[in-house]
Amino acid sequence: MAGDSLGKIFRITNWGESHGKAIGVVIEGVPPGLSLSQSDIQQELDRRRPGQSSLSSPRNESDSVQILSGLEAGKTTGTPLSMYIANSDTRPKDYTAMNNLFRPSHADFTYFSKYGIRSKSGGGRSSARLTAGSVAAGAVAKKILQSHFKVSFMAFVRSLAKISSPMEASQVSKQMIEANLVRTTDSKSAEKMAQCIEEAKHSGDSLGGIIECHIHGLPAGLGEPIYDKLDADLAKAMLSINACKGFEIGSGFSGTRLRGSEHNDQFIRSSTSGEIKTLTNHSGGVQGGISNGMPIVFRVAFKPTASISKTQHTLNEELQEQSFQAKGRHDPCVLPRAVPIVEAMAALVLADHMLRHRAQIGTFYKTPANSS
Amino acid sequence: MAGDSLGKIFRITNWGESHGKAIGVVIEGVPPGLSLSQSDIQQELDRRRPGQSSLSSPRNESDSVQILSGLEAGKTTGTPLSMYIANSDTRPKDYTAMNNLFRPSHADFTYFSKYGIRSKSGGGRSSARLTAGSVAAGAVAKKILQSHFKVSFMAFVRSLAKISSPMEASQVSKQMIEANLVRTTDSKSAEKMAQCIEEAKHSGDSLGGIIECHIHGLPAGLGEPIYDKLDADLAKAMLSINACKGFEIGSGFSGTRLRGSEHNDQFIRSSTSGEIKTLTNHSGGVQGGISNGMPIVFRVAFKPTASISKTQHTLNEELQEQSFQAKGRHDPCVLPRAVPIVEAMAALVLADHMLRHRAQIGTFYKTPANSS
Amino acid sequence: MAGDSLGKIFRITNWGESHGKAIGVVIEGVPPGLSLSQSDIQQELDRRRPGQSSLSSPRNESDSVQILSGLEAGKTTGTPLSMYIANSDTRPKDYTAMNNLFRPSHADFTYFSKYGIRSKSGGGRSSARLTAGSVAAGAVAKKILQSHFKVSFMAFVRSLAKISSPMEASQVSKQMIEANLVRTTDSKSAEKMAQCIEEAKHSGDSLGGIIECHIHGLPAGLGEPIYDKLDADLAKAMLSINACKGFEIGSGFSGTRLRGSEHNDQFIRSSTSGEIKTLTNHSGGVQGGISNGMPIVFRVAFKPTASISKTQHTLNEELQEQSFQAKGRHDPCVLPRAVPIVEAMAALVLADHMLRHRAQIGTFYKTPANSS
Amino acid sequence: MAGDSLGKIFRITNWGESHGKAIGVVIEGVPPGLSLSQSDIQQELDRRRPGQSSLSSPRNESDSVQILSGLEAGKTTGTPLSMYIANSDTRPKDYTAMNNLFRPSHADFTYFSKYGIRSKSGGGRSSARLTAGSVAAGAVAKKILQSHFKVSFMAFVRSLAKISSPMEASQVSKQMIEANLVRTTDSKSAEKMAQCIEEAKHSGDSLGGIIECHIHGLPAGLGEPIYDKLDADLAKAMLSINACKGFEIGSGFSGTRLRGSEHNDQFIRSSTSGEIKTLTNHSGGVQGGISNGMPIVFRVAFKPTASISKTQHTLNEELQEQSFQAKGRHDPCVLPRAVPIVEAMAALVLADHMLRHRAQIGTFYKTPANSS
Repeated sequence: MAGDSLGKIFRITNWGESHGKAIGVVIEGVPPGLSLSQSDIQQELDRRRPGQSSLSSPRNESDSVQILSGLEAGKTTGTPLSMYIANSDTRPKDYTAMNNLFRPSHADFTYFSKYGIRSKSGGGRSSARLTAGSVAAGAVAKKILQSHFKVSFMAFVRSLAKISSPMEASQVSKQMIEANLVRTTDSKSAEKMAQCIEEAKHSGDSLGGIIECHIHGLPAGLGEPIYDKLDADLAKAMLSINACKGFEIGSGFSGTRLRGSEHNDQFIRSSTSGEIKTLTNHSGGVQGGISNGMPIVFRVAFKPTASISKTQHTLNEELQEQSFQAKGRHDPCVLPRAVPIVEAMAALVLADHMLRHRAQIGTFYKTPANSS
Repeated sequence: MAGDSLGKIFRITNWGESHGKAIGVVIEGVPPGLSLSQSDIQQELDRRRPGQSSLSSPRNESDSVQILSGLEAGKTTGTPLSMYIANSDTRPKDYTAMNNLFRPSHADFTYFSKYGIRSKSGGGRSSARLTAGSVAAGAVAKKILQSHFKVSFMAFVRSLAKISSPMEASQVSKQMIEANLVRTTDSKSAEKMAQCIEEAKHSGDSLGGIIECHIHGLPAGLGEPIYDKLDADLAKAMLSINACKGFEIGSGFSGTRLRGSEHNDQFIRSSTSGEIKTLTNHSGGVQGGISNGMPIVFRVAFKPTASISKTQHTLNEELQEQSFQAKGRHDPCVLPRAVPIVEAMAALVLADHMLRHRAQIGTFYKTPANSS
Repeated sequence: MAGDSLGKIFRITNWGESHGKAIGVVIEGVPPGLSLSQSDIQQELDRRRPGQSSLSSPRNESDSVQILSGLEAGKTTGTPLSMYIANSDTRPKDYTAMNNLFRPSHADFTYFSKYGIRSKSGGGRSSARLTAGSVAAGAVAKKILQSHFKVSFMAFVRSLAKISSPMEASQVSKQMIEANLVRTTDSKSAEKMAQCIEEAKHSGDSLGGIIECHIHGLPAGLGEPIYDKLDADLAKAMLSINACKGFEIGSGFSGTRLRGSEHNDQFIRSSTSGEIKTLTNHSGGVQGGISNGMPIVFRVAFKPTASISKTQHTLNEELQEQSFQAKGRHDPCVLPRAVPIVEAMAALVLADHMLRHRAQIGTFYKTPANSS
Repeated sequence: MAGDSLGKIFRITNWGESHGKAIGVVIEGVPPGLSLSQSDIQQELDRRRPGQSSLSSPRNESDSVQILSGLEAGKTTGTPLSMYIANSDTRPKDYTAMNNLFRPSHADFTYFSKYGIRSKSGGGRSSARLTAGSVAAGAVAKKILQSHFKVSFMAFVRSLAKISSPMEASQVSKQMIEANLVRTTDSKSAEKMAQCIEEAKHSGDSLGGIIECHIHGLPAGLGEPIYDKLDADLAKAMLSINACKGFEIGSGFSGTRLRGSEHNDQFIRSSTSGEIKTLTNHSGGVQGGISNGMPIVFRVAFKPTASISKTQHTLNEELQEQSFQAKGRHDPCVLPRAVPIVEAMAALVLADHMLRHRAQIGTFYKTPANSS
């Protein structure tokens, strides 16, 4: 029940530290008989791994996953999937000089205040490296969802620092996103953003931005009011990602400026499929905490990376003032690598809610789209 | 484990429907020996109850709470607190004409798609009336927190539709907030906002807005990475509130436009108390998912109420098009009544994390402020 | 997550004290659309209620249940079922003289040592009166199980003090059990046992015994190794009943004296139904923690009631020696009233495991018996 | 929330299969700053490992544990402890001939009926090999308990088949138990039992027996009524051990034959320590589901091992009758190796309840014995 686990039926337990021997994740509640291969997982990890481009941390980790249990002859057995990822390129010495410091806007002080003890190497448990376990588990979650529904996930960088992509989501494709290093909507926006990242990198600074995520193909009916609303659990999952400072679904913060008569999503019947839809999607695919069959649309805010190489002032464990320049290998901007993490966290929430729904109800809401 | 419960140690289970006989909440994990009276709870319920002003729903509920168990001679016994609130002013007939309709941006369709059956009166379980249980439990959570720390909660309406309060939080007081019907920062803003609500009400429309919440006095060290981060659990709690569409902590969405060198919160030592602080609070009091002893600051976006009396178009359960005008008694704007709900949900999260922290660690981080 | 809740999907939360205003239970995770009436629940409560015969406590409680939520037009709605039972015949004064005493083999001292505070009336939360909530919820669990499978529960008193019923379970029927006040297998055993109880009652003493439970019609496949084995969860549920000191399934303690070649249950195919069975049932219907489709058979040991009217010696809260004679109204033997409690607790475990199985797997093991 | 996890605060997640690459366990909720070494864990694993004597399975596993996370410089960090044990002596070929068979009283059929798929090697997840993870975690649990209280665990074989040790527990020591291969109370009983095991082994048969466990030094106050009673959680933990068929605490099944006046445990004050005790301990250290400070005493029944080499009859997956002789390496009697497993499972329950108690209450009941 500690914070290292997520989910109620499809439940993951994440373990490890940034500069230890390995990290990993154990998944309980995986439906048996699901086709699964190492490469299903590896391809998502590869989207997240450091060193993938000049825009990300140069730490060189292959992030090769090993599946230690729960899989036999290419099928899940229904017993826990244990996945193991070695830490191969650790450089604890980079952190020696900062051992005693509370780096600004890092978790050094808060871990110290909580546990009375803290990892001396690269953030230990607070490192974003731990999201690898989430991404590995998220790949399994996607497979589970896709074994029942034609669910697709498309996250991308909507804005980076002060640069926003002007593209409408309907014009964007996964191919376009993966075709540029920033994982934004198009090559033109990507170019501007990449330049901006390079510039920040050279000046020893860092950038933040906003990721937008669209999920198509989810049936109506998922989510458990009144506290485990689908959007509530998505919000939690997103805020658990390192450097995340905000979440909004559908019309979000800007929707607060509309009137009810402008904001309400009118129900209509699709002339092609005959199924129930809404004319607009200010709700972002969730109403009353339950999916309504429209695309799930949300945005996630990431602050600029706390690790910068400019000189900074802080306190040490004895509460003495000190100035320092950070070492260690870091991303000047986490956004490009956060795209698969956002998708993975969403998949974890949705797979769990799919199984929870099945527990209580037994069947899913039938529409022409999923009743095939 | 269904969505009707929240928390792991301090755990509430909420039950009831809008137009049934009663609603209520059961709280497990309450520390024994805590002084608690009915009025501790009633005063928070009174801030939430309908009919409190011309700006809110005219439904007339006294929302008188009864404590049925867990309390003896004014002290909690450590066994479950069961609280009961009668529904006295139900008017199920108001809903008869809409029985068969999926009201736009309401939960009628999604409950129907999930359960195959839905309450025919006023939203049933999806009604915001159920937040009364959360508020009652939140009052207990506040008492628990305050039995250990000088924790104070101050939420207020930061913006309503397009009107924003320009006041800095440091200039605002609980007295000022409760002195105006809108629960915003000052009487001048309140006047503008109230006028705006009255206007929307008369035109049969509704409004949204943003609530900001400041929590002072929490010790460093609360929160459980890597998934049950304090901000993640706050995000979930807020998104579970009816009509909520977004959450941001500290610098939030606007912080994505800053550079790391601007955004990082420098640690300093308070010249007066000697304790560790940060010069700025872009982190909003949480770093790496754990409180750092600075004020917790977050904002919550509420969409305009879905219930409007203008004519709308929708589908019925047979997926036929229909137009209708909503009956029932509703708030043209939920913001004033949502202020105590935001505080209550935050208190529930914090009390649970306080006890969870005590479970694993045994003691709290000592600072001059809490070591008295 | 406190001990007041049981179950993961079908989850009950029990509240109340023996001599407070009321007791109750909230059930989450109830499948929607289930036909349910107050009398489904009342009939089980009536089997448990005090005052039902000369063999039980004279406390006069009608134990009338009210369903406050989760039910509309005779069908469950999928939202929490809240059930309320008033305490009408409380006599807190009976306990005044014993207020300060730690009654032997009661929970007075242990509640005091845990909470630092304890109910001054009749055991408070530790009273067996709280099993009424379990029985009410168990009635719902039975309905859920029976909506899918032809599950039947038959518990009875196997032995009382030194008197054992010699009947084989296959010769016993629910009718026979309910036809005698002891709820044992037959009228002859019942007569001996009743006489024994009457005698103990008159001598101010109390008796224990063993209840045996047979559950037919459960499909193979329920249970979740490696810790939430079906028999493990049954054991827990039984040991949570007041006065329970032991649990054994199938061959139990006496099976430890057999050899593997005698104990192993040979698989055979039923010549009539064609389905897989075992020749013997030393396993008690559970193998490797999962049901195998054979009858679930277990026995539960109950100690003699701690409340006796003979003079006893003990300590008071100041640890001074005192002698006393217990007042209050108690059962000289809990066995007859524990029969429906054993069934209810088993039903709670099985309904939860049925829904948990459906969450992960989606379908149930098909045999000629349940594939209709 | 699946059955692979146990505990609420001190929570373990067990993964792996008997004949896969490795098995392991992840522990959440470990208090930080606890001194812990690999050998603390290894010494308990060595008591459980196969091949330790002529009385146990000849499978040759060193069961060397690796700690992959959560430990730095010999101290726990408060983050998950991940422990890894390689499977080095797997012989999946031994099982080829039985691949298609449902071995009697094994979990082959039930896993098949649940998951529709089953491991083809040596029981897979249902193997008792998985108890190694529990034992490793139990070693950590013991350390946690012992960091607060002088808790000691003493389990031993009370009876084996029809041979019972006549020794009183007060005369037995851990040294005596570990000095004989059977782990019974004394060398004389050990000799008889060992002979009996050897004889069964040679005749291709197997034996069961009863383990008794005594836990000293636990404070009063642990346990969470009304469902998570301490004895209820112990019962569940024991029944989750492979081959376990029964649990009784204190007077257990035989206590059902006593009268209340004989069974009640009179409270007295220790003349030496001044603390509250009971004259007898029929309660087994638990009253009303909460520890009372007296020794916890319980007994656990183990059936004879299902694996025997005698010819047996059964069905295959096509429900055809077949006879077979089991291959694979098995224990003719699990009792000697089950002794450390019983202790470990008890320690897991007690450590969790200790932390749960601390969460809600903050302090422990003070007696002269633990207030040092």
